[in-house]
Amino acid sequence: MTALPKWSTARAPAGRITYVNGQYIHHGEASVHVEDRGLQLGDSIYEVCNVSGGTLIDEAPHLDRMERSLREIRMVMPMSREALQLVMREVVRRNRVHHGFIYIQITRGVMRRDHALPAQPLKPGLIISARNVPLSVLDKKLASGVKAITRPDERWARRDIKTTQLLPNALARTDAREAGALEAWLVDADGFITEGAVANAWIVDADGNVVTRALSNDVLPGVTRQVVLQAAEEAQLPVIQRKFTVAEALSAREAFITSSTSTAIGVVEIDGRKIGNGQPGPLTRRIHDLYAKKAGLKSV
Amino acid sequence: MTALPKWSTARAPAGRITYVNGQYIHHGEASVHVEDRGLQLGDSIYEVCNVSGGTLIDEAPHLDRMERSLREIRMVMPMSREALQLVMREVVRRNRVHHGFIYIQITRGVMRRDHALPAQPLKPGLIISARNVPLSVLDKKLASGVKAITRPDERWARRDIKTTQLLPNALARTDAREAGALEAWLVDADGFITEGAVANAWIVDADGNVVTRALSNDVLPGVTRQVVLQAAEEAQLPVIQRKFTVAEALSAREAFITSSTSTAIGVVEIDGRKIGNGQPGPLTRRIHDLYAKKAGLKSV
Repeated sequence: MTALPKWSTARAPAGRITYVNGQYIHHGEASVHVEDRGLQLGDSIYEVCNVSGGTLIDEAPHLDRMERSLREIRMVMPMSREALQLVMREVVRRNRVHHGFIYIQITRGVMRRDHALPAQPLKPGLIISARNVPLSVLDKKLASGVKAITRPDERWARRDIKTTQLLPNALARTDAREAGALEAWLVDADGFITEGAVANAWIVDADGNVVTRALSNDVLPGVTRQVVLQAAEEAQLPVIQRKFTVAEALSAREAFITSSTSTAIGVVEIDGRKIGNGQPGPLTRRIHDLYAKKAGLKSV
Repeated sequence: MTALPKWSTARAPAGRITYVNGQYIHHGEASVHVEDRGLQLGDSIYEVCNVSGGTLIDEAPHLDRMERSLREIRMVMPMSREALQLVMREVVRRNRVHHGFIYIQITRGVMRRDHALPAQPLKPGLIISARNVPLSVLDKKLASGVKAITRPDERWARRDIKTTQLLPNALARTDAREAGALEAWLVDADGFITEGAVANAWIVDADGNVVTRALSNDVLPGVTRQVVLQAAEEAQLPVIQRKFTVAEALSAREAFITSSTSTAIGVVEIDGRKIGNGQPGPLTRRIHDLYAKKAGLKSV
């Protein structure tokens, strides 16, 4: 007999199918063992990949980053990249995802609880789920922009690895929501913004430069960030990768965030202070359009 | 149909029973939903409580700390303290644990993946498992001591909360094992030792004082640490709560660690350098004995 949670049927939208460790399962019944190291130690990595018009967006760089995350914490791919891509497509297909996203989590696997990694690699755990998100959700954010707050960056030292060490992010996002905002921009010990709790942070500075923090252990190497940088370079926009302070962000001409599911969205208010004229800025919109074109986003 | 992992029967010692969300289940089949926030975000807390002679050791302070951990991340107890204690005893009983430990994990619960906490509290997830550990395992460590290495402390900012944000601990412990050591003592940006990856860190300094770092967000408020402090005070031992550097630890008269499952164990080598005469020190042994008596440990 298995621990089927009581909420399983209530929470499972009809027909939603999730891949878990070799099987396609009704989402409400998709489960992992209680000694999966992902559950006990946060010993797992993940990716969220946008789906637009039924197509996985920026698939290759997402898989590249996933492979890097695994290497950095000494995990191995649960199957070949090609096989993984087949499963990803099958999850998108079975869930009839047109616009939405796919969520991939790879855990170290199951073993008797112990902190140290096993001497011999375990069979990794693999969970892939997907769902539709109404296009109107993103459209509204694109049109109106979103608000952000600032919070101390309390995360662990390796934010460059996309692990599930996400409790500080969750707490910061909760603070944001309770302040009527969407995102929390995280601030390092020297007063510089690292990135948002779930998205990379950008400003347009007083000289009209598009600015985002350079890569290091302090920030996630965002896939959308990378594609935006390429698109901006191709469009000859002035882009500088450098740190910026909260004060500089508050007086920026524009501010925006980038992530796979939010593309590039204007930040119109930070800590209750209006950015620019309080509307998504023209450079933010241009960057969104450049990104959407380069990544192949479908708008219908 | 449910995702029963293929390793379930192979990994489950005959008769081991684990409590999950209201049910006592064969350990190999104990599972949680893939959208449990504990799995997706590390949004959970835990406790490990020593079992000696069939009795839970330091049960009250463990439950006190658990309640504090929950409060700090805005979670609620999954049931009353009294009910929880009944379940804990039942898990010990069903697994016939004489000497060993009980592991309790409380997750935020299951919801559609989103970083921010739900506006209305979820039903928390509750997992309680237990197993025997041969007394010889601890006896050997008590007699011979253990080795430690030092590593940068890469954990998040709230080490005072016993959450499952444990990947940096796991990686540090792996480094330790590969260096032939058991524990990793973690070093803050200023060169001071915070604590071990799984146990509080102590030294006996040049003046004969027993030293451990004072409580703050930087260290876990160890239950064994607390009971040791009380026992040492009652025995009129000179105890000081202050920071100490790696250099001071390397030249300390004695060094030791405290945790619920390891009680007080001598550290006889740090980064390959012998501490004292390379054997567990006399004050370490005295503190172990004081602790064992105060906590009510059974030696047979």
